[in-house]
Amino acid sequence: MKRDFHYYLPVNLIFGAGKVELLGTEAAKYGRKALLVTGKGSTKRTGLLDRALGLLAEERIEVRVFDKVTPNPITDTVYEGVAAAREFGAEVVIALGGGSIIDCAKAIAFAFYNDGDIFDYIYGLKHGDKGLPLIAVPTTCGTGSEGNCFAVLTNTENNDKKSLRNIVSVPKASIVDPQLMTTMPNSVAASVMFDALCHSMEAYISKSTQPLVEMQAIYAMRLMAINIRNALNDHGDMDAWSAVTLASTLGGMCINVAGVTAPHGMEHPASGLRNIVHGRGLAALSPVIYHETLEYAPEKFGTISKIIGGKSEADFEDQLNILLQDIDLKTSLSKEGIEESDIDWMVKNCMKVSGASMNAHPKLFSEEEIRNLYYKAL
Amino acid sequence: MKRDFHYYLPVNLIFGAGKVELLGTEAAKYGRKALLVTGKGSTKRTGLLDRALGLLAEERIEVRVFDKVTPNPITDTVYEGVAAAREFGAEVVIALGGGSIIDCAKAIAFAFYNDGDIFDYIYGLKHGDKGLPLIAVPTTCGTGSEGNCFAVLTNTENNDKKSLRNIVSVPKASIVDPQLMTTMPNSVAASVMFDALCHSMEAYISKSTQPLVEMQAIYAMRLMAINIRNALNDHGDMDAWSAVTLASTLGGMCINVAGVTAPHGMEHPASGLRNIVHGRGLAALSPVIYHETLEYAPEKFGTISKIIGGKSEADFEDQLNILLQDIDLKTSLSKEGIEESDIDWMVKNCMKVSGASMNAHPKLFSEEEIRNLYYKAL
Repeated sequence: MKRDFHYYLPVNLIFGAGKVELLGTEAAKYGRKALLVTGKGSTKRTGLLDRALGLLAEERIEVRVFDKVTPNPITDTVYEGVAAAREFGAEVVIALGGGSIIDCAKAIAFAFYNDGDIFDYIYGLKHGDKGLPLIAVPTTCGTGSEGNCFAVLTNTENNDKKSLRNIVSVPKASIVDPQLMTTMPNSVAASVMFDALCHSMEAYISKSTQPLVEMQAIYAMRLMAINIRNALNDHGDMDAWSAVTLASTLGGMCINVAGVTAPHGMEHPASGLRNIVHGRGLAALSPVIYHETLEYAPEKFGTISKIIGGKSEADFEDQLNILLQDIDLKTSLSKEGIEESDIDWMVKNCMKVSGASMNAHPKLFSEEEIRNLYYKAL
Repeated sequence: MKRDFHYYLPVNLIFGAGKVELLGTEAAKYGRKALLVTGKGSTKRTGLLDRALGLLAEERIEVRVFDKVTPNPITDTVYEGVAAAREFGAEVVIALGGGSIIDCAKAIAFAFYNDGDIFDYIYGLKHGDKGLPLIAVPTTCGTGSEGNCFAVLTNTENNDKKSLRNIVSVPKASIVDPQLMTTMPNSVAASVMFDALCHSMEAYISKSTQPLVEMQAIYAMRLMAINIRNALNDHGDMDAWSAVTLASTLGGMCINVAGVTAPHGMEHPASGLRNIVHGRGLAALSPVIYHETLEYAPEKFGTISKIIGGKSEADFEDQLNILLQDIDLKTSLSKEGIEESDIDWMVKNCMKVSGASMNAHPKLFSEEEIRNLYYKAL
């Protein structure tokens, strides 16, 4: 057991099917004027946005809807959101949507009080210690953004994709309602759930892991492994959906402390450049990366293997591939739209934006090894 | 998995041997005038109090020492502490000591802003939502008070022993330094560690348990079971002491949400009346209570049994007795000073102060059954 660590995660988790009903009363604790950040599509299609607006109206909270967020949110959108929040006089930010939306809302809440290029804060050139209070209502069970302070952003100027990390960006409250996840089509659900599993696996094998993270990661991997197939097979199985949803939140909590490792570190350049689906990028890269990592953390991979159905580290790769097959997520970078000619840029960008993640990986890959991994994953 | 729950525990945990060195810088975040709550003996004997005062002086924090706390703290001491804090103009409270000291410090920090009989708040007749910020530095690994909002107090007027529970009593920061625990003699260490194990076991079997508690409890029970003997046998084994210390903090976190069950519920009347050592009271009561509980939660006891060295619920009792034997804690209520004539009062008091704990137990005991359990534990 690692003997030294800090742990601080002051989010009020409100978990359970139907708990979205508490949105109005929860928001009222933080302000009377709310910027509601959401996307262009699904929360409107499913009626969730209207339901949320109704709940906020019941508490007489004034709302400005900001619905400009796209997958892999970009800095331009953040600045536009900040302008809207200031013009409106927002006192609280509500994120209603998937990881991209929660991340963008975090960045808006932070940049509300912190001027200038947000990438200056991401790279640690500037520091901010204040943000608008944020309430997260996730509609996907993958990012775990509701359980941490990360806001992954893509810089419009250079495609750098990197996390804003600041303790003030931990949501004040996260209303995690598994019922909201069940409307995802399986193609989306499988990729976000695999992202969640990756968070737990990477935090668990990370050199920066610590006891409370290991505890959360093991519990989350088990919940996900036992329930992911049932959830995808039956969108009415609320036991399974509750379990995978909690696994996702826990995955987000894990990485808040331990960060991610090489799979995420190498995926960000891919989705930063080509706007591919994050979970599918991870599915393409993880098997290739873990093949070269097993021998550097055999005990840990032995534990993970047992959790996902294997017997020891020797069959970890088989089990991972079976899982990807079962959830219809076997893929490669080229199938996702990456071309061979992209690799040079991705290698350089990985060295630039993913230093911490690559350093936390059990095996430190050289630039040449990273290049080879991208080729193998093509 | 229970599908609905809330989880909120905004304590900044700073864990590791030597971390007490951070006391001055941590305290400075919350105020310039600190009421330092400690006991009459051990923190002076070990030099820890002087060390703490030195660390606070380095940060130019003014300190008033309040060293009147005794085991099983009483309401009179709380009021005396509040008077001292007000007279001094304290901005932050620092608790340096075992569970009794942390609990008393919590109550002082709370009552600083909340007038009147503190038992009115304990029984829910009054409500307070403000307290002085508290920093906890535990010197025992049992109570877990550094990881929750509970302050167990004994009412001087009628011997009622019951917890103040208020979210504002969660310490802002807890500096959990396993090095500080190693000076306990084994007689004290064994009883506090057993208290810690009881917290995890009771939270795990509680009807009020929920997934994050189960996760913490299983992890904590495992840490304790693997390391308790090593820690007691070798006070220099910092791996073992780090593990049991973390197990204790986690035990405290578990009960913050799930509460305790019958062993704690029946022990409080005993130590409320006769001022016996809490962990020894638990050691006398737990085997007797669990003997009558096994069949109501066989799966849970099967899991616990495996963690503490057994194979299934069938050998849970044997394993529990072996553990108590190994840590020299086999005892009975009469050995601890309880007399047969105390039982009537304890039964009535248990019904009065421990309703929530008794109701959360897997088997609901009648008044007559409670009486029989006390007799068997004599």
